[in-house]
Amino acid sequence: MHRLARSVLKHIRKQDLLRAGDRVGIAVSGGADSVGLLRIALELREELGLVLSVAHFNHKIRGAESDADEQFVRQLAVTHELSLLSEARDAKTHAAAKKLSLETSARNLRYEFFNRLLASDEVNRIATAHTLNDQAETVLLKLTRGAGTRGLAGIYPKVTVQQSAFSTQATAVVRPLLATRRSEIEKYLKELNQDWREDSSNRDLQHTRNRIRHEVLPHLEETVNPRIRETLAEAAEIARAEEEFWAEHINALLDRSWTRDEHGGRLNLDPLREAPLATQRRLVRAATESLGMNLEFCHVEEVIAFSREGARAALPDNWTAVL
Amino acid sequence: MHRLARSVLKHIRKQDLLRAGDRVGIAVSGGADSVGLLRIALELREELGLVLSVAHFNHKIRGAESDADEQFVRQLAVTHELSLLSEARDAKTHAAAKKLSLETSARNLRYEFFNRLLASDEVNRIATAHTLNDQAETVLLKLTRGAGTRGLAGIYPKVTVQQSAFSTQATAVVRPLLATRRSEIEKYLKELNQDWREDSSNRDLQHTRNRIRHEVLPHLEETVNPRIRETLAEAAEIARAEEEFWAEHINALLDRSWTRDEHGGRLNLDPLREAPLATQRRLVRAATESLGMNLEFCHVEEVIAFSREGARAALPDNWTAVL
Repeated sequence: MHRLARSVLKHIRKQDLLRAGDRVGIAVSGGADSVGLLRIALELREELGLVLSVAHFNHKIRGAESDADEQFVRQLAVTHELSLLSEARDAKTHAAAKKLSLETSARNLRYEFFNRLLASDEVNRIATAHTLNDQAETVLLKLTRGAGTRGLAGIYPKVTVQQSAFSTQATAVVRPLLATRRSEIEKYLKELNQDWREDSSNRDLQHTRNRIRHEVLPHLEETVNPRIRETLAEAAEIARAEEEFWAEHINALLDRSWTRDEHGGRLNLDPLREAPLATQRRLVRAATESLGMNLEFCHVEEVIAFSREGARAALPDNWTAVL
Repeated sequence: MHRLARSVLKHIRKQDLLRAGDRVGIAVSGGADSVGLLRIALELREELGLVLSVAHFNHKIRGAESDADEQFVRQLAVTHELSLLSEARDAKTHAAAKKLSLETSARNLRYEFFNRLLASDEVNRIATAHTLNDQAETVLLKLTRGAGTRGLAGIYPKVTVQQSAFSTQATAVVRPLLATRRSEIEKYLKELNQDWREDSSNRDLQHTRNRIRHEVLPHLEETVNPRIRETLAEAAEIARAEEEFWAEHINALLDRSWTRDEHGGRLNLDPLREAPLATQRRLVRAATESLGMNLEFCHVEEVIAFSREGARAALPDNWTAVL
């Protein structure tokens, strides 16, 4: 077994991502990371007792280039005698119709496809090829855009998807490469003489993520910390465990203090007033999120100030907090 | 009252930094930020009912330049008829003797001076001129160096200093400019025709902080978020409240599970094993900090793994965790 496969195996076991008998759809775009994930999964298949297939979503964003990616992935599945689960939808049309950025539209469509696969019983795990580099980029991106301590949690190694109230089986999206650097994967593929497809949009510096990837992180690596990506991934790991703690703590409080009604909802302010500030903020956020709102920090502060001083606070999407 | 002074007043009241009757030593280095703080404090003196003095510490780092700074600050105190509390110590000699970086040595000496002033009854508040820029730099610096969610808390607006068990009065270091941008202060000083001293070492890109200040943050401002400094300061505010929550939560647990003894200390592992991962990590950190250790993430993880699996974990400074 290749050294890299062994280190991924260790991460899979530590995070409990995959178990014997899992039917795993490897999400392969054709890029180095996902082709690497596929080859590593093939190495680990027997050891872990997995049933593998290849999942490909064609967003049609780069025309003939996108179709050539699909063709490349199809051939990869044939070579390794794996079934291919694929779908094509036009992300540009979807973005226009739903007024989303192209990036968000593509992501939504892709995850809808993954969820359909998980619901279909064809697979019970989708493995995506997010790397340590993606993790560091996400942490920095979220933090610089204003996600507070929650954003620091970054990409989760395992996201459980509840199919339905009747489903007996929890399905999940898992990220086996989250502790692996992109450069290690490229090196591994070169050793295997395995080629991959380069996505031309990855170098487009119009995209904020690409500027973080190609400019900000290399600069921080050079001038502040040569292990910046590992450091940010560690911060994410610490933050994720704290988010789990908070989720449990706040859900218990929410059960006691928040009631949905025809106007929106009713937050019993008495426990809120005595709670520590951090708990108050988290409680306001959780209550308003259950209404589909995503408050900025200033709005959270307004609700808390208003709970102390009375009056009313105007919130986004025409919501109002009333005493 | 100048618009800037009014906005600082609002921050002082929101964070409860200064109250009528406080004897405030304004820490003035001679740079724009601290000269700005002094002029703003003079504007707010009557409204807040403060007794002001000027506190200056000469680190002797830049020879004649340092002495000229002291002279400049002395003149400023004379002009505004304030008493000057000053001290000079050689930070380089101290750094060599204590094996500290020059930056840390200077900081330690400066804060020792502040603490002596606070203990002397001359003042009950020291106000330092940390700005929103310093806050953003600190958050980014701590995060990139690996301080996890705790680092995100950045600079605290108020740090209470307990003088002694017999002292009836809590004294504090406060930062009234923590929500103010450096550029606003310079603009204000120009309007007042008030000059200041430039510290030549502020532009030395050998220092990591200066690279964050002059390269990383301007780049993030340009390419990711024009309000990057405000965004990082907000993240710090969220994180600080969560740190307060954790401090209380963990201290209560520590009281029940941690006993110091002649070998170091004894952590009762039973509550640790059932606690959420975030609590376990915080508890291990707090227990080892009471021994003067500052663990890296990997060491915290080792202690937790070992508490599950038995055996022993080697820690820094020749400490060992034993089952």
